[in-house]
Amino acid sequence: MGGFKHLVVVKFKEDVVVEGILKGMEKLVSEVDAVKSFEWGQDIESQEMLRQGYTHAFLMTFEKKEDYTAFTSHPSHIEFSATFVTAIDKFVVLDFPSVLAKSPA
Amino acid sequence: MGGFKHLVVVKFKEDVVVEGILKGMEKLVSEVDAVKSFEWGQDIESQEMLRQGYTHAFLMTFEKKEDYTAFTSHPSHIEFSATFVTAIDKFVVLDFPSVLAKSPA
Repeated sequence: MGGFKHLVVVKFKEDVVVEGILKGMEKLVSEVDAVKSFEWGQDIESQEMLRQGYTHAFLMTFEKKEDYTAFTSHPSHIEFSATFVTAIDKFVVLDFPSVLAKSPA
Repeated sequence: MGGFKHLVVVKFKEDVVVEGILKGMEKLVSEVDAVKSFEWGQDIESQEMLRQGYTHAFLMTFEKKEDYTAFTSHPSHIEFSATFVTAIDKFVVLDFPSVLAKSPA
């Protein structure tokens, strides 16, 4: 993979319909060409002590940092973000150039 | 990618030599066949308010959940983990089956 990554780890508020948020996010990434790939997951495995209350991870891959920067100011992203922030209880965001230290065979 | 993901987001303690930790982690994943791919990054971009003090993300991919479970009890993992926990100030761990919602072209 490599590329530039936008990682968002969140805990949703209790009354939030997560499926609705996910649909919005999938629509967003489908609308923005700069998003090369997008994967996400809901923790089902780790101990609560390790998870620290967080439940979902979202990972977007861009070719380069400039593409990510352009994405953040895209109207679809701005619109989605406004909804997203109202749905989350806590979050961590990390944006970084990815170092691929072991490749899929 | 898909597969089963092991995501670790950390803030290292201030006096830690991160390069040493990274070398240990690269050795670990090279020793364990079950780890299909491994990528990591150091945040250089997000605002401190978004980053919440966290600095590094580590993402390992396994073919299936059982491979991850086997990895956690591998002697190399147990040995590395003992060192790793002494180096970190705070962390979030999420383990999840990955949903690939947009694939690389």
